Amino acid sequence: MSLFLIIDILGTIAFAVSGALTAMKKRMDVFGIFIIAFVTAVGGGTLRDLLIDANITWMRNLTFVYVITVAVVLAIIFRRKLGYVRRSLFLFDTIGIALYTIVGVEKGIAADFPPIICVALGTMSACFGGVIRDILCNEIPVIFRKNIYATACIVGGVAYFLLLKTTLSSDIIVIISGSVVITIRLLAVTFNWSLPSIYRKSELAED
Amino acid sequence: MSLFLIIDILGTIAFAVSGALTAMKKRMDVFGIFIIAFVTAVGGGTLRDLLIDANITWMRNLTFVYVITVAVVLAIIFRRKLGYVRRSLFLFDTIGIALYTIVGVEKGIAADFPPIICVALGTMSACFGGVIRDILCNEIPVIFRKNIYATACIVGGVAYFLLLKTTLSSDIIVIISGSVVITIRLLAVTFNWSLPSIYRKSELAED
Amino acid sequence: MSLFLIIDILGTIAFAVSGALTAMKKRMDVFGIFIIAFVTAVGGGTLRDLLIDANITWMRNLTFVYVITVAVVLAIIFRRKLGYVRRSLFLFDTIGIALYTIVGVEKGIAADFPPIICVALGTMSACFGGVIRDILCNEIPVIFRKNIYATACIVGGVAYFLLLKTTLSSDIIVIISGSVVITIRLLAVTFNWSLPSIYRKSELAED
Repeated sequence: MSLFLIIDILGTIAFAVSGALTAMKKRMDVFGIFIIAFVTAVGGGTLRDLLIDANITWMRNLTFVYVITVAVVLAIIFRRKLGYVRRSLFLFDTIGIALYTIVGVEKGIAADFPPIICVALGTMSACFGGVIRDILCNEIPVIFRKNIYATACIVGGVAYFLLLKTTLSSDIIVIISGSVVITIRLLAVTFNWSLPSIYRKSELAED
Repeated sequence: MSLFLIIDILGTIAFAVSGALTAMKKRMDVFGIFIIAFVTAVGGGTLRDLLIDANITWMRNLTFVYVITVAVVLAIIFRRKLGYVRRSLFLFDTIGIALYTIVGVEKGIAADFPPIICVALGTMSACFGGVIRDILCNEIPVIFRKNIYATACIVGGVAYFLLLKTTLSSDIIVIISGSVVITIRLLAVTFNWSLPSIYRKSELAED
Repeated sequence: MSLFLIIDILGTIAFAVSGALTAMKKRMDVFGIFIIAFVTAVGGGTLRDLLIDANITWMRNLTFVYVITVAVVLAIIFRRKLGYVRRSLFLFDTIGIALYTIVGVEKGIAADFPPIICVALGTMSACFGGVIRDILCNEIPVIFRKNIYATACIVGGVAYFLLLKTTLSSDIIVIISGSVVITIRLLAVTFNWSLPSIYRKSELAED
């Protein structure tokens, strides 16, 4: 099994568990939990594939359906103990968005879209599963308020294109731009970064 | 007119009326009521067709547009008397999801998707119109909380695949697996079944 | 630069600013504001293109990405002064929906859909960006409650088809049917028109 596939599966697990946890907070039943977990894990990639008119991976390759099913079952059983593995989940999730970003960028390049659209496709792959999860759970998507998540993907995608202009091999480019996503995300969470607020105190006081 | 088309039209009427009723509860205007009714009736099939890259039926065959329009007009006029036909509507709706499930499964098989994905496509055809209806009305989709609806479709879809391995004719397979969906739904509503809850009393008490 | 492109850009600016204002009311951060503005401006056309299986314009032609980016930056900087240009924005928006309606109708005709579906595609192009904006902001879409917006598009689309049966040139048909959309919208706002309510006072009193 290639390293890429392992990372992809770990990322899928992290996304599925995050979806299952959100659904359980809303007291959904088993079917609802599974659907929300599934959509969180594959929703971003599905939207990307619809927009670029590509085949949707999980509909032909069942690996991800099985992985998500097992992740949901374990998340339900151990839901009260997930606090103990939160760090591992966060790490998987962070590696997952890095990988999803690069997969999205590369799919965009393969279909010959302009660089700015490829970066958008990468960010969408990594982030829009969470947007659909929040809409289905009747919440304003968290990413529109605390977006370092998306910013990390955008910067990583831009790094990918800058590195393409060098003589570096494609493997190295993937590793460096993936590391950029991971590093920004880890720094942002560690130091509680957020985008500079555009609102004055007087505006926020009106709320 | 074939029996299938008649059932399909009855199912569409039931879905459209359910959408119109939800929209009227939210005090939407005539345009909003029509859109919600339309989306409830055709949304699941449209999402399925987008995912499998098939033509979208209602865009080429206007029968369903006309049926939905008439159903919405009648639902608005007789909205205070719909209680009297609730039983008929429920029956149409139940027959409708059975038919939609089988249509979805068969479309998946025709496009050569794996069985598990075909069952998912059948369930999506039957259930996701209601999910889109609830999102547009700013509610958490009811199906994620009381899901016997979806469970009936899943069991019916699985039955379809098990029967495919027998020597039964395709008509008989459709009738039996459709009856499975209808029977489970009717039993579930009659005996107020729901999926076993995963939550302990202590968890629900926290809410 | 053709007149059509100028109108299209002005319409895009108006839609993007309306999205940005909604996002700022929800106190989203810069990323969220940009995404909501973008979706408001291009969401209706994107949904249309997905349904008719056409190429999605903004993914190949970056003009709109740049226009929306500039519009969002200006909307953020001058957000407290946008009241002064509200009239201009409203005018752009009204001209924009007229143009979007006609573009949608013509795309439907080019793909050989029935007239009623072409009118629906035109209305969707003009109105569904706002629907997606409201869903992402966790609101019931405003268009389902105050729909003269959509009604103007529907009447304009029908006018287009009626005029096609005359000997008028296609330019004249576009101008007349576009003017129909603009006139109805302006009259509706000036005289505060809405669709006749279907609810009795006794029903509204129950709320």
